[in-house]
Amino acid sequence: MRIDIKQCADMLMAQDNILIITHAHPDGDTLGSGFALCRALLKLGKKARVICADEIPTKYLNAFGELEMPEFKEDFIVTVDVATTNLLGDIAEKYGNIIDLCIDHHNSNTLFAKNTLLDGDAAAACETIMEVIKALGVSIDKAIADCLFTGISTDTGCFRYASTTAATFKAAAELVELGADNGRINRIMFETKTKTYAAIERLALEGMQFFLDDRVCIITVTQDMYKQTGSQESETEALPSLTRQIEGVEVGLTIREKPNGECKCSIRTFESVDASELAAAFGGGGHKQASACRFECSVEDAKKLLVAKCEELLK
Amino acid sequence: MRIDIKQCADMLMAQDNILIITHAHPDGDTLGSGFALCRALLKLGKKARVICADEIPTKYLNAFGELEMPEFKEDFIVTVDVATTNLLGDIAEKYGNIIDLCIDHHNSNTLFAKNTLLDGDAAAACETIMEVIKALGVSIDKAIADCLFTGISTDTGCFRYASTTAATFKAAAELVELGADNGRINRIMFETKTKTYAAIERLALEGMQFFLDDRVCIITVTQDMYKQTGSQESETEALPSLTRQIEGVEVGLTIREKPNGECKCSIRTFESVDASELAAAFGGGGHKQASACRFECSVEDAKKLLVAKCEELLK
Repeated sequence: MRIDIKQCADMLMAQDNILIITHAHPDGDTLGSGFALCRALLKLGKKARVICADEIPTKYLNAFGELEMPEFKEDFIVTVDVATTNLLGDIAEKYGNIIDLCIDHHNSNTLFAKNTLLDGDAAAACETIMEVIKALGVSIDKAIADCLFTGISTDTGCFRYASTTAATFKAAAELVELGADNGRINRIMFETKTKTYAAIERLALEGMQFFLDDRVCIITVTQDMYKQTGSQESETEALPSLTRQIEGVEVGLTIREKPNGECKCSIRTFESVDASELAAAFGGGGHKQASACRFECSVEDAKKLLVAKCEELLK
Repeated sequence: MRIDIKQCADMLMAQDNILIITHAHPDGDTLGSGFALCRALLKLGKKARVICADEIPTKYLNAFGELEMPEFKEDFIVTVDVATTNLLGDIAEKYGNIIDLCIDHHNSNTLFAKNTLLDGDAAAACETIMEVIKALGVSIDKAIADCLFTGISTDTGCFRYASTTAATFKAAAELVELGADNGRINRIMFETKTKTYAAIERLALEGMQFFLDDRVCIITVTQDMYKQTGSQESETEALPSLTRQIEGVEVGLTIREKPNGECKCSIRTFESVDASELAAAFGGGGHKQASACRFECSVEDAKKLLVAKCEELLK
């Protein structure tokens, strides 16, 4: 069932032991949403906890500050910024079919939860979470503002993407007034590269390939590259945005090899190609200009499949 | 004399033939300020024109759209985003001593003009220009909004720098509501690398070197690299910011070889080292975190001199 902000707040208000689940391979928006909501629920005297199938990159923990979360048996399960249950990763099997509430901003949301609060116009799930927190009557303190600002800033590429609306800028203004340390957060998120990331970025750029009259740019990240640089997948979030920055490129693909030799692909496009359509061709999903899908084949085979589909879409 | 927004608007309102001057090597903020103010004055039926000592990069003209500016003999001269007269470049001698009005946001402004509207808290001069245009009673149309958004966005590194305030985000929200095409502008300003730049960036990253326990990072750009990639020096503006982004780096140096085999160096630092002090050791200068100097020796010799000086400063 689709619900609105007020219904969502009423539903959360009626619960006490709330488990919040972010998507796997977590980013700033899913984590900012999860931790902001968790902090708000804790302020209401409820028990709440955030979990994720994958490890949370330290940069987010640095941005958000310490949070002690209680252990408890959950009565109510919420997902944040999760469009489909397979994005839950390794915990999809355990929780996928018993999600009580889904708060999301992906138009491709499969409505897998019992109740869904979906705002496809929001540039970040954190914009919607901010409204939910207000509807819960919780005053947004600095720590919550930092979480929400992180989500909004990271999901819009620091307000760079076309998805950024007047409402996004207004939310940012309000969060800065409420104490969000925007300069510090943006420095952590956008101005700091670990040495290992810098090394893998260098290798990725060296191996960049162009297809279809240079309208498609592909970056490949292999397990061997992780070994060579000491880097790991959780560090490679920023790579997809590099593919789309080059003059003339309409589709940017970042293919990451998994330990089992299979792979997944992050897709970035401009207006000429619908990224969610490209992803959907391989069982994935996402937004019009940013999406993702998985392959049960090698990087090289995935590359061929993707280029063939791009050729079709670019016609 | 320092004046406020209203006095500034009254002063402009009383004039008819207004010359607007931007700083040399023009950026988005000085050009956005100049063209927004010019459009507003033209809407009031006045004659106004923007001039600059240097050529205006096409990306700004693309972002702003066409503007026909009349020829006339000026009665009143305004500078926008200009802190000192030597920033006027080659036209400093002609106009430096006869500026009627200066609208700026640099605290270092030398108050060279007869009248100065200075808001050191504004992240961009365009924030102040926006207030002036409102005080003139001109409604901000899409074209003016595009100019102002460009200035705010570029001077804050797309809302990334700590100088970005709640007021900056509010101004951005208002401009988007008034029609500013934020997605398109940011794409032009931040998301588009020419292929030749992408190629030289790749080479520069490949050759990146670290010194003094990795506290110093050096990028070298040789004449040979320009030849190899078809790139040129004017394209390499963005390279220096790459040096400072790596974890642990306190001094980022970008050494560019000149056609005669000598070289110059762009310096970027964080708080621990004063970039202007490092530059001054070699006869250069600049700000605390961004400076530059020139060498009458080869890249390799300059590298040695710089690393030795860094060792002294980092002690």
